[in-house]
Amino acid sequence: MSEEQGPKEHKAIPNGIKAPSHLNLPYPDSPELITSNLQKLIDLVPDPRHKFVFERLIAHMHQFVNETSITTEEWMNTIQFLTRVGQTCTPIRQEFILLSDILGVSALVDSLNNPPVKGATESSVLGPFFTEDAPDVAQGDSIASEGSGEYMYVEGRVISTDGTPVAGAVIETWETDENGTHPHLFLALGPLTSQYLMAMPGFYDTQYSNRQAADCRGRLRSDKDGKYGYRAVVPVCYPIPGDGPVGELLLNLGRHNMRPNHLHLMVDAPGFRKLVTALYPSGDEFLASDAVFGVKKDLVVKLQDVNDDAEARKRGFPKGGSFKLLEFDIILSPEAEAEAARTAFAAERAQKLVAL
Amino acid sequence: MSEEQGPKEHKAIPNGIKAPSHLNLPYPDSPELITSNLQKLIDLVPDPRHKFVFERLIAHMHQFVNETSITTEEWMNTIQFLTRVGQTCTPIRQEFILLSDILGVSALVDSLNNPPVKGATESSVLGPFFTEDAPDVAQGDSIASEGSGEYMYVEGRVISTDGTPVAGAVIETWETDENGTHPHLFLALGPLTSQYLMAMPGFYDTQYSNRQAADCRGRLRSDKDGKYGYRAVVPVCYPIPGDGPVGELLLNLGRHNMRPNHLHLMVDAPGFRKLVTALYPSGDEFLASDAVFGVKKDLVVKLQDVNDDAEARKRGFPKGGSFKLLEFDIILSPEAEAEAARTAFAAERAQKLVAL
Repeated sequence: MSEEQGPKEHKAIPNGIKAPSHLNLPYPDSPELITSNLQKLIDLVPDPRHKFVFERLIAHMHQFVNETSITTEEWMNTIQFLTRVGQTCTPIRQEFILLSDILGVSALVDSLNNPPVKGATESSVLGPFFTEDAPDVAQGDSIASEGSGEYMYVEGRVISTDGTPVAGAVIETWETDENGTHPHLFLALGPLTSQYLMAMPGFYDTQYSNRQAADCRGRLRSDKDGKYGYRAVVPVCYPIPGDGPVGELLLNLGRHNMRPNHLHLMVDAPGFRKLVTALYPSGDEFLASDAVFGVKKDLVVKLQDVNDDAEARKRGFPKGGSFKLLEFDIILSPEAEAEAARTAFAAERAQKLVAL
Repeated sequence: MSEEQGPKEHKAIPNGIKAPSHLNLPYPDSPELITSNLQKLIDLVPDPRHKFVFERLIAHMHQFVNETSITTEEWMNTIQFLTRVGQTCTPIRQEFILLSDILGVSALVDSLNNPPVKGATESSVLGPFFTEDAPDVAQGDSIASEGSGEYMYVEGRVISTDGTPVAGAVIETWETDENGTHPHLFLALGPLTSQYLMAMPGFYDTQYSNRQAADCRGRLRSDKDGKYGYRAVVPVCYPIPGDGPVGELLLNLGRHNMRPNHLHLMVDAPGFRKLVTALYPSGDEFLASDAVFGVKKDLVVKLQDVNDDAEARKRGFPKGGSFKLLEFDIILSPEAEAEAARTAFAAERAQKLVAL
């Protein structure tokens, strides 16, 4: 071990900052003095925003340790857990975001930064499955390859909060397939298929090792009347990765690792706040307990059953039969309204916090 | 990227836990509902201690985000910082412990778990430089190779809190050398030597890539009267690693990365609470602002100047001349006393927290 490292490799060199003798720090002989010395050192932080954030961070971290009387062993376990979270991250997997997600922090940060604008469609979490390589699809075309799942037609208008149609809005949309319908899985599962199909989760195309091209994702534009429409499949619920430390944590917390079925939408048009959201078809058993806290009431939608072979064929579904219809108007917020809403929201919350 | 992973590799499978429909969670439409849904999910945690700790963790994390209105960008920067901390860890480097150290959490956990026992020597942080391969040294022998630094003799008694000598206590002791005295460094630094020597930090033996054997560390036992004594060198201040994310954080916080000079001691005897501590010679400029908050008033010691060539030679210092004398009685706490102190301390603190 020691053969591998020297002072040079360790870069164990003074950083050049002087001892802060003007702070007259006492020796930190007690828990209270450790905390107050740290808070005094906050005076040294050059950036005012950093200073404020670190003051609050230290206050909460230290109070957490005090309130729980964390034992030395518990703290070492925590250190080892965080280390494993960091070491599970790769260029294509972000376990710390997952940790932030399941502790509700991602959703909380999203809800503070993107407060609802009266009359506009609400935001939801982006998730880790957006890609840049979605194909352009024309109005009425399909984003999903045949056999990916149950037919679903998505249509509506993109409008402004005042009802004006928004033409040429770019709509990125992506979703899971319905994994059980993949022929190779039928073969692999054999006689167990019927028993397990109900519980089989869907997958994003990027989760397949043999992915050749984008599937279940596409990019289209609203027409001159703001209208949009495309063929897709009914998304299904799916689990977040369970083989890392975050998966273990969920098990320890007694929580499932499922996200309810949803269709992602990211909508952008000049002059409007970019909308990152998702629509959640009603009825999924995991809606209220979404592992990452992404569902909002106004984003839960009802799928209509259209049992009309002629209509299905007219819409372009090759096998006809029946399909689900998802009708949804995407209401964008003009930039100025979104910014005003955020300012008002922040002021209102600041008031609440003072009142606490 | 996507060629490398499939559903199987991701282990994206349901963990088998059911949706908690009995909790009647509302959709988390607001910041308050995200937090309250999470707190309701705490009911599912099987272990009562985990339940309590996570309830407090979530309360503090969410309140921190609320109070600071963390922006999406700030949160992503935090995620990336934590990821880098995790990925900087190796089998021989623990950057998360370093992070915990400089945020005072390690010291706080230590002070809560090892409260002072009346009359006993106080504890201090173990640090990352303890090794198992320290050589046994006899009374009066040296733990440091000749030329490692300025001569220092350490002596005293190991006694119980009631003054009884503790015979046969095992004393592990380790320290930095005085880096400037190494001939190869003199050569490397050339004419800059005299200018920089004053600021040169010391190093532990394990920080040298050419380490052949343990140096500046040893293991001895107190004699039948509890006495101990050994030759060492005056330790010098040194920086914690500054080349990783924690080093960058200290720079952003305007804080130096130095620890004051100190001599580590770990003392163990049957029936007594194991003592992990360090002695800090007075006068070091970084004593009060130790980057890891390890110094306690009772652990700051005064080194005596002994300018007596005959005495130096009698003590075994090869070159004679002068030496520093560190006299310190190590006072161990009987197990029962240590446990009683911890219980009383926890009760007293719980009382304080209620009063907050």
